[in-house]
Amino acid sequence: MMIERELCARILEENNRILLLCHRHPDGDTLGSAAALAHALKAAGKTVAVCCDDEIPSCYDFMLEGLARQADFVPELVAAIDVADTVLLGKNSEAAYAEKIGLCIDHHGSNKLYAEKVWLCEASASTAEMVYSLLCCMKAPITAQMASCLFTGVSTDTGCFRFSNTTADTHRVAAKLIELGADTHSIIQTFFETKTKTYAAIERLALEGMGMYLDGRCAIMPVTQEMFKKSGAHESDTDRLANLPRQIEGVLVGVTLRELENGDFKASVRTHGEIDAAEICKRLGGGGHRGAAGCTLSLPQNEAVKALLAEISSEIDKYTEAEVI
Amino acid sequence: MMIERELCARILEENNRILLLCHRHPDGDTLGSAAALAHALKAAGKTVAVCCDDEIPSCYDFMLEGLARQADFVPELVAAIDVADTVLLGKNSEAAYAEKIGLCIDHHGSNKLYAEKVWLCEASASTAEMVYSLLCCMKAPITAQMASCLFTGVSTDTGCFRFSNTTADTHRVAAKLIELGADTHSIIQTFFETKTKTYAAIERLALEGMGMYLDGRCAIMPVTQEMFKKSGAHESDTDRLANLPRQIEGVLVGVTLRELENGDFKASVRTHGEIDAAEICKRLGGGGHRGAAGCTLSLPQNEAVKALLAEISSEIDKYTEAEVI
Repeated sequence: MMIERELCARILEENNRILLLCHRHPDGDTLGSAAALAHALKAAGKTVAVCCDDEIPSCYDFMLEGLARQADFVPELVAAIDVADTVLLGKNSEAAYAEKIGLCIDHHGSNKLYAEKVWLCEASASTAEMVYSLLCCMKAPITAQMASCLFTGVSTDTGCFRFSNTTADTHRVAAKLIELGADTHSIIQTFFETKTKTYAAIERLALEGMGMYLDGRCAIMPVTQEMFKKSGAHESDTDRLANLPRQIEGVLVGVTLRELENGDFKASVRTHGEIDAAEICKRLGGGGHRGAAGCTLSLPQNEAVKALLAEISSEIDKYTEAEVI
Repeated sequence: MMIERELCARILEENNRILLLCHRHPDGDTLGSAAALAHALKAAGKTVAVCCDDEIPSCYDFMLEGLARQADFVPELVAAIDVADTVLLGKNSEAAYAEKIGLCIDHHGSNKLYAEKVWLCEASASTAEMVYSLLCCMKAPITAQMASCLFTGVSTDTGCFRFSNTTADTHRVAAKLIELGADTHSIIQTFFETKTKTYAAIERLALEGMGMYLDGRCAIMPVTQEMFKKSGAHESDTDRLANLPRQIEGVLVGVTLRELENGDFKASVRTHGEIDAAEICKRLGGGGHRGAAGCTLSLPQNEAVKALLAEISSEIDKYTEAEVI
C-alpha cells in the first residue's frame, strides 16, 4: 500500500524495535538516510539497527558511530531505506527479511512495491531529501551528525547538485542541513574532490587511449584488461570513467568500451541533447535511457568500435537531418 | 562610502542612463550579475549598457541578448559590478571611467573601495547572490533569462556549490532561481561538464607526466611549453589543471609546475587540511593563502622539483610532528 509521509512517521513512532535495511553496494543515500533516521529513532528511546549485506566502505564510518549494525533483537518493524527491489538487499538480508518488510522509504520510480507500506516520492532527488522532511514531520531534533548523513545522501545522489534530478527543494534541504551543522567541506572533499590512486591511474591510461571519430562528434575510450592490471583498479572504479568521453567539447556521443574478462566489450554510451543512446544500444542488443545506455559486444576491440560507429553515425545523422528540417 | 542594499537600490532607481562595468577576463559572476541587473533596469524603462574591455566568450551570449554593449549615451551613473579594483576594468575602461564610478556592487574582501558608494558583502559567495537580493528589494520582476544569468554567477563562483564559500543562503538563492526558470541543465553542461578539446589534450599530457613523492603525500605535475604546443592549449586552460594533483587520495600537497616562456617555472601549490601552502611558497619567494599559494622558480625543472620537495617535506613534517604531540 502506498502511504504518505504522515502515516510513515506514525508507523515509525508506534514501533519500538526497528531494523533499517540498506541496499547492497551501499552508497551515500541508502546509508545516510538510514543512519540519520536510526539516530533519530535511537534518540527517541527506540532499539534500532542499520543493516547492510555488503561491507561498508570506511568513508561512511562517520555516519554509523553510535549505531548497532546487527539486529540482536527481534524487530517489530523492518524498514527498507532507498531499496527499490528485495534483490538489491543482497542474498542474506533477502533470505532473512524479504517477506517481512513492513515499510519502505524510497525515491526510485522503479520501486517494486514489495513492502507492506511504501512511502515513495519519485520527484525527490534522493531518499535523504525525503528523510529530512520525515524528521521535520516527526519533530525529531536533527544533530550535526544527522545533518552530515543527510547532506551526504542529498549530494551524492545529485552529483553534488549537478544532475538533472536536482530541484529547488534539493537546494532548500541543503540550505537547512548546512544550518544544522552538516560538515559539507569534508563530505565534498571525500566524495567529490578525491580520486583513489587506482582510479587516477586507470583514468590516465584510459584518457591516453581515447579516440575521436565522426569529425569530433564521437569519442570512444577503450578500458582494457591490461589497464586494469597496470593500474590495480577495480571494476567499480570504471563507473566514474563513463562520463569522461562526453565531456569533450563538440562530442555528442561519448562511449566507454570496457573489456570484460572473457574478452567481450561492454559499451557505456552517453549522449547530449536529443541523441538517443538507448536507440544506439538497442540496435546492438542492449538498452537503457535516452542520455545513458549500454550494450555488450562479442567482438574484437577494432570491430566493436566499427559496429558502434556505424550505429552512432546513423543516429547522429538522423538528428542532424531533423535539425535541418 | 560603504552603503547597504536599500540605498544601492535607491541609487539605481534614481538614475536613468546607467552604464554597468564588468571586470576584464570576464567570468560568469561579473557578466551574469551585470546582465541580470541590466535587464531589470531596462525593463524599468532605463537606458542601460553592459561594458567589458575584453572580448566576451560565446558561452555568455545568452546573457547579453537584448542588451547594449556600448554606452552610446552619456551615463548619469557608472556602476562597477564584481570589480574589486579599477585596474581589473582593463586599460580602456580604466582610462575612461576609473574616476567616475558612482557605485560598486561586489563581494570581494579585497575591494579597493574606489567607488563613490560601495555595497560590499564579503559573506556572499558571489555578486550574483547579492544582485538577486537587490532585485527582490527593488521588486524587479525576474525573468527566466535573468534567473539563468544569476544562476551562472552563483554556480561558477562556487564551483557548482563545492567551494567552501558556499553557504545556506547560496543554496536558498539557487532554489529561488530554479523556480524562476533558470536553465540549470544547460548552464551546468556548459560550465562544468564540458572540457574544450585543447584543455582535454593538455590535461591528458599533464596527467601522464605527474610524479608522486614523499610516500604519496605529494604530487607534482609539470606543464611544459612543449605540452602547450602539442595540445594547442592556452595559458588560461591551466587554471583548471591546478586542482588535479591534490585530488589524488593520500596527497596532502599537490603542485602544478608550469613552464613559462622564459624557461622559469611557476608553481601552484594546493594543500589539504592544516598544511600551509603560503608558508611553502613564501620560503621560495612567493605567497598566497593557506590552501592555495604560488611562487616562481628560476631553475631547471628537476631542480625546481627538488627545491619544492625540500620545503614541502619540511612543512609536512611540521604538521605530522604536531599531530603526534
